[in-house]
Amino acid sequence: MTKKGVFITLEGSEGVGKSTNLAFIEQWLKQAGHDPILTREPGGTPMAEEIRALLLQKREELVSEKAELLLMFAARAQHLDQKILPALASGRCLVSDRFTDATYAYQGYARGLNLSWITQLELLVQQAVRPDLTILLDLSVEVAMSRVQRRGETDRFEQEKTEFFQRVRQGYLARAQAEPDRFAIIDASQPLEAVQSDIGHVLADFFLKRASI
Amino acid sequence: MTKKGVFITLEGSEGVGKSTNLAFIEQWLKQAGHDPILTREPGGTPMAEEIRALLLQKREELVSEKAELLLMFAARAQHLDQKILPALASGRCLVSDRFTDATYAYQGYARGLNLSWITQLELLVQQAVRPDLTILLDLSVEVAMSRVQRRGETDRFEQEKTEFFQRVRQGYLARAQAEPDRFAIIDASQPLEAVQSDIGHVLADFFLKRASI
Ligand SMILES: Nc1ncnc2c1ncn2[C@@H]1O[C@H](COP(=O)(O)OP(=O)(O)OP(=O)(O)O)[C@@H](O)[C@H]1O
Ligand SMILES: Nc1ncnc2c1ncn2[C@@H]1O[C@H](COP(=O)(O)OP(=O)(O)OP(=O)(O)O)[C@@H](O)[C@H]1O
Ligand SMILES: [Mg+2]
Ligand SMILES: [Mg+2]
Repeated sequence: MTKKGVFITLEGSEGVGKSTNLAFIEQWLKQAGHDPILTREPGGTPMAEEIRALLLQKREELVSEKAELLLMFAARAQHLDQKILPALASGRCLVSDRFTDATYAYQGYARGLNLSWITQLELLVQQAVRPDLTILLDLSVEVAMSRVQRRGETDRFEQEKTEFFQRVRQGYLARAQAEPDRFAIIDASQPLEAVQSDIGHVLADFFLKRASI
Repeated sequence: MTKKGVFITLEGSEGVGKSTNLAFIEQWLKQAGHDPILTREPGGTPMAEEIRALLLQKREELVSEKAELLLMFAARAQHLDQKILPALASGRCLVSDRFTDATYAYQGYARGLNLSWITQLELLVQQAVRPDLTILLDLSVEVAMSRVQRRGETDRFEQEKTEFFQRVRQGYLARAQAEPDRFAIIDASQPLEAVQSDIGHVLADFFLKRASI
């Protein structure tokens, strides 16, 4: 694949404001003259959304941690093949609400699965494809949880305990520290307008640097 | 895991008689004093059966070969964790209609996915768990297809062309040749009584050898 487009991902634990800010990013990109494609993980294609439903459903049966990990990457393989790679190949800007950093944070840091297994699967499924920019919305677990609770009905992941989401948050921060050039960390405890102003600056910087290469 | 039970798998392409002979194997094992657990792949637990349904469903969306491979192993991870390993740990004899040899034959030899990816996933999901005995029902694709057609409604795999099933058959035979101690090849073109007589001899030999170790 010759990748010509721009691949942006939005990350952060439950309730930090990813979906809320995706709409803002869309507006920003449109005003900057792009024609963005918005998508999400797990999901993004009809079959990948079926895998998402299977993953999020609360069930009596215990879910094997490896099965969860493999389902995440199965959905990702389908999403890449049918949506992400074609979009990037045709030069589009694609923004995804979560991607592989979420697998490291949730299945790796929070569930405790071997990080090297995730790296193996990442290589198998993505080969060299990585996001160009990852916006990490960082927020204390307490505030994030109170935002989620206001939303009502919870899924299988949202049932986890506070310590689980602490590990998710720390996992994301560790990823960001390891790849500072790709990540932009946003303080998501701010009022929405301030969060969006920060995101706008991050996007402006990103496209400026990109234009100068 | 301390594995004390016996793990037997039944393999072969579409329509060779796996499901038909599973019932015979069950009877044979019961008469020999075992208390067998019968299962199948993909599937074997409620969640793994949901993954099976997702895999077999005919759909407009093209299915990424890697997504198919990862779904197979996701179902297998769940099946191992929730059913196979507990059964073997408690000393039971478990017989599965298909297992990982099918992934090598279908996704590897027939679809053409890198065999080393399958080996990587096998290690990740199964660690050292392998079947103790694999009964391969071998049959020409023409006869197998005519048996399947008599059965009516086809699934996503059964829609494939003859050459696909030729590669499945050759893949199975290559697996059997590489591991002659684990595999028993049965000529499935024979009348059912002869097939079952052969399977009975294979089982008798297997338990005799096992008792003498
Ligand atoms: N900066 C903010 N200040 C206050 N509330 C916010 C802010 N950003 C988002 N919210 C609210 O927090 C809730 C969660 O936001 P949102 O659904 O966008 O989070 P999310 O990261 O997409 O969550 P999930 O991971 O569960 O999909 C929503 O009710 C949203 O309106
Ligand atoms: N030895 C045999 N001679 C003739 N017909 C047979 C023989 N064994 C099985 N059949 C018939 O062939 C058909 C397919 O058998 P069966 O469903 O057991 O195959 P299978 O290997 O389980 O197929 P699938 O892979 O699609 O599940 C059935 O109608 C069965 O009755
Ligand atoms: Mg969201
Ligand atoms: Mg069958």
